[in-house]
Amino acid sequence: METIEILLIEDNPYEAELAIRSLKSNNLGNRIRHIDDGADALDYLMSDEFLNSGLNYLILLDLNLPRVDGLEILRHIKRSDILTMVPVIVLTSSKEERDIIDSYRLGVNSYIVKPVNFDSFSKAIADLKMYWLLLNQWPQNGRS
Amino acid sequence: METIEILLIEDNPYEAELAIRSLKSNNLGNRIRHIDDGADALDYLMSDEFLNSGLNYLILLDLNLPRVDGLEILRHIKRSDILTMVPVIVLTSSKEERDIIDSYRLGVNSYIVKPVNFDSFSKAIADLKMYWLLLNQWPQNGRS
Repeated sequence: METIEILLIEDNPYEAELAIRSLKSNNLGNRIRHIDDGADALDYLMSDEFLNSGLNYLILLDLNLPRVDGLEILRHIKRSDILTMVPVIVLTSSKEERDIIDSYRLGVNSYIVKPVNFDSFSKAIADLKMYWLLLNQWPQNGRS
Repeated sequence: METIEILLIEDNPYEAELAIRSLKSNNLGNRIRHIDDGADALDYLMSDEFLNSGLNYLILLDLNLPRVDGLEILRHIKRSDILTMVPVIVLTSSKEERDIIDSYRLGVNSYIVKPVNFDSFSKAIADLKMYWLLLNQWPQNGRS
């Protein structure tokens, strides 16, 4: 398996720190990149660095973000024939039916509501990491 | 959580039996429906029974199926504004790059290659069931 990089798009510093700590505690050798602003995330997704990377990414996407919201980022990813192959997990505190439905309609791979309890949050992150990095199959030879 | 029904679309009787046994062994009260033919699966997905069910389904989809193949079924589901909210996991023995890429482009939620070893297969089914039924969030109040 090629190493997958985890792209965490999250503006809440406390929750980002928690997520990064949980992601690191089950070390599969994955790098983690954290972006805390929607417009910066979109810029990165359109950058040569990202597009030429082989796109071996798993994206964890918050919905409420400064400047460009998560649904707009999801729309951008899933409208692209290339980017759509990057799994996107919405990871949010929103249980709003509208957000859930919109996310599925835009093509989200999975939608997870952040548990409020610290231990449950850590376990959710560990479980999702195991599922997506060990069980889910990525394209192996580039994204042509 | 509303009870999610698992729809297993798989023509190989041995692998279907294995999957059903693994799904039942971690009992979360979910019903399992098994369909072994692609055209029958498509008929069911277009039936009033399915469309009026609340669509609380998780679909496990094989790719090589009699009459209508799995990619065609996936295309049908993900082109529909309503059906697209049903998570579809491709569960196949195909590691073909073309199948993986086509599945992501058509909007599959996750792609899993069936482990050949019996114990690994059972564990994969158990893990995917836990992830999708306990961690992933479904729309709760109908699919309007």
